[in-house]
Amino acid sequence: MKIDIMNGGVCFPKGFSAAGVKAGIKASGNLDLALLYSEKSARCFAAFTKNQVQAAPVLHGKEVLSKQNLINAIVVNSGNANACTGEQGYADAVSMAELVESELKLSKHSVLVGSTGVIGHKLPMEKIRATIPELVKNLGTENSELFAKAICTTDTTIKTACVSVQTSVGEIRFGGSCKGSGMIHPNMATMLAYITTDLQLPEDFSTEFRVFVDESFNAITVDGDMSTNDTCIILANGQSGVFLNDLNLTEQADVRHALLGLMKHLALQIVQDGEGATKKIEIEVCGARNKTEATQIAKSIATSNLVKCAFFGEDPNWGRIVSSAGASGVEFSAAKISLYFENVQVVRNGMPLEVPKSQLLEIVKRKEYKISLDLCLGQYKTSVFTCDLSYDYVKINAEYTT
Amino acid sequence: MKIDIMNGGVCFPKGFSAAGVKAGIKASGNLDLALLYSEKSARCFAAFTKNQVQAAPVLHGKEVLSKQNLINAIVVNSGNANACTGEQGYADAVSMAELVESELKLSKHSVLVGSTGVIGHKLPMEKIRATIPELVKNLGTENSELFAKAICTTDTTIKTACVSVQTSVGEIRFGGSCKGSGMIHPNMATMLAYITTDLQLPEDFSTEFRVFVDESFNAITVDGDMSTNDTCIILANGQSGVFLNDLNLTEQADVRHALLGLMKHLALQIVQDGEGATKKIEIEVCGARNKTEATQIAKSIATSNLVKCAFFGEDPNWGRIVSSAGASGVEFSAAKISLYFENVQVVRNGMPLEVPKSQLLEIVKRKEYKISLDLCLGQYKTSVFTCDLSYDYVKINAEYTT
Repeated sequence: MKIDIMNGGVCFPKGFSAAGVKAGIKASGNLDLALLYSEKSARCFAAFTKNQVQAAPVLHGKEVLSKQNLINAIVVNSGNANACTGEQGYADAVSMAELVESELKLSKHSVLVGSTGVIGHKLPMEKIRATIPELVKNLGTENSELFAKAICTTDTTIKTACVSVQTSVGEIRFGGSCKGSGMIHPNMATMLAYITTDLQLPEDFSTEFRVFVDESFNAITVDGDMSTNDTCIILANGQSGVFLNDLNLTEQADVRHALLGLMKHLALQIVQDGEGATKKIEIEVCGARNKTEATQIAKSIATSNLVKCAFFGEDPNWGRIVSSAGASGVEFSAAKISLYFENVQVVRNGMPLEVPKSQLLEIVKRKEYKISLDLCLGQYKTSVFTCDLSYDYVKINAEYTT
Repeated sequence: MKIDIMNGGVCFPKGFSAAGVKAGIKASGNLDLALLYSEKSARCFAAFTKNQVQAAPVLHGKEVLSKQNLINAIVVNSGNANACTGEQGYADAVSMAELVESELKLSKHSVLVGSTGVIGHKLPMEKIRATIPELVKNLGTENSELFAKAICTTDTTIKTACVSVQTSVGEIRFGGSCKGSGMIHPNMATMLAYITTDLQLPEDFSTEFRVFVDESFNAITVDGDMSTNDTCIILANGQSGVFLNDLNLTEQADVRHALLGLMKHLALQIVQDGEGATKKIEIEVCGARNKTEATQIAKSIATSNLVKCAFFGEDPNWGRIVSSAGASGVEFSAAKISLYFENVQVVRNGMPLEVPKSQLLEIVKRKEYKISLDLCLGQYKTSVFTCDLSYDYVKINAEYTT
């Protein structure tokens, strides 16, 4: 099935509304408080950062979801990560949820919290408290973009997408919005992603959701830094009247394909908007003994500064690619490998082929291209998406002030 | 014992001479062929890259040293790494060694080879063959600097040091020279290091030498990239007449201290000359359960692009440091950690302290400073040395052409 990813965001599926307002958390005065609301309780699945240092909203989200997984709303602030803020920070995350619960007359533990921004500063709770009534008042089904904008930090573009699947028992919809630009690395970076759907998902969808997260948001890297706040959440409110498990197997496959497609599409928007990025590169590793090793090598290449500088410099420096594969910690035979820039083979049996440089230059000057490393050891393959390392990455991150 | 590291290089110990000439391997026309010679066979210990893709001179060195460890000379070219060059590359490495053996009338397997530079290009053997007689003719005890210069690639300075230890049975000397600037990461990066000594070392010095390498050249990082060619070699010709094991325990400790001091000094010259580097930062992790975990965390911080950009931007962004520690994969309690910039504590029990920003700014504006992370879990500690990530790193590596 071909999936048509469309413009549209978290409010695309039935029963979801959103808002984005200014609470004065960001010094810039931009939108910095966002709310996502489902009129019916939605089944919620979440993936959080594996960083040992976890921000208060992450700890709060895990705590809530350990009790029950029916969620009505998510409130998100940008401009402040509420990380390394101790007990006060946790209390603030609880307060944010309770303020929204109270304003929307929701039951306890039905609201999740997200935060992104600078680490180690107390949330300006007075500003947030004062703005929540306005935030709730602004809820509307036409506010996908305002929501997307209010969760951004150094992002230069909002990131939204939606998709619709026609099944034999009715249409189902997925919508989504994410943010992230720096500190982007597999296992959730400073990345917040919210997916909505009016499909009813089964209780045991959790494992499958983790796989989808691994194949989308965990398959991208901007700078190799995993953050304290990373979160990917899906809310499924069932308002389409369609239950995933009631569909026939072909339709189930179509729906899964659409959801994964949407998640990948959102993830790639993050790479495209990587801090200072001028190019989006797919690193495919194939012929591996297993998927873990393929991923380990792909990530080693995708995070190599030398490789990423060569991407920026439009230099087909395949030696750096081979070297960073070799440094991944995975055993392979250097004498067996093949390497391709798109369809042009540059290495066979570990040795360079005579390829006209003009042919390679044509490829590396593109905005998007694919590099494939074949280990010739087995049947497994994977892809990781990365961007180049430019002057602007350094500029953004040297000047971003604490 | 205080060790006085002095100016001087590989020819400082008795019985060593060196040369550095132009063979036309580098397009720039700079010195690119170097020779180190010991008039008596020297006992040799070596540490090579752990990269799965190993350059021909590394494979050759391992092969020779698996047969015997008495070495008379090392011939090194810069400008070409002789990596990913297959059987021809290996044959070329053997030829380089044999040409020197023949010219110096040495026995088989008494010469090692080193190469550094671009990956995937055949060595220009005709140029090397034609230049080896001149190289041998130029051997002299005053050529430490020429040797140091001829092994450089993107290095902006030569890297040499020497040290002398007075023992009860006579003076012993250590000299050394290394190169490396980019692709620098623990486990040997594009780094060549040659240490000479007139001390006689015992046959079983190998394990101890590995420890010294771990505490010096493997404790530095410039860009997280481990290369195909990394090599650290010590040649001990015994011409001082002093045998390490004959010294009393205090003197043995002094000698070990001097050798490790020399190796650290050389390693730090590499960080200082890191591509684009403007600062040298010590990352100390203490209070760890064991040294492996301390090292894993220190390296995670030392290789974080976000942290290194903050160093460059002179921003005391401790949140990024804590976050990259958390992303290291080591388990610790975020609520226990302390963090210091030099002696100024900025985090206690995982939470920020009120520190005047001016006090931190004074520290991060320095060319060298130390950051300490205390996990408060145990007694182990380690230090890793890194540099900042600047515009010039990107410039050098985007423009360095294949």
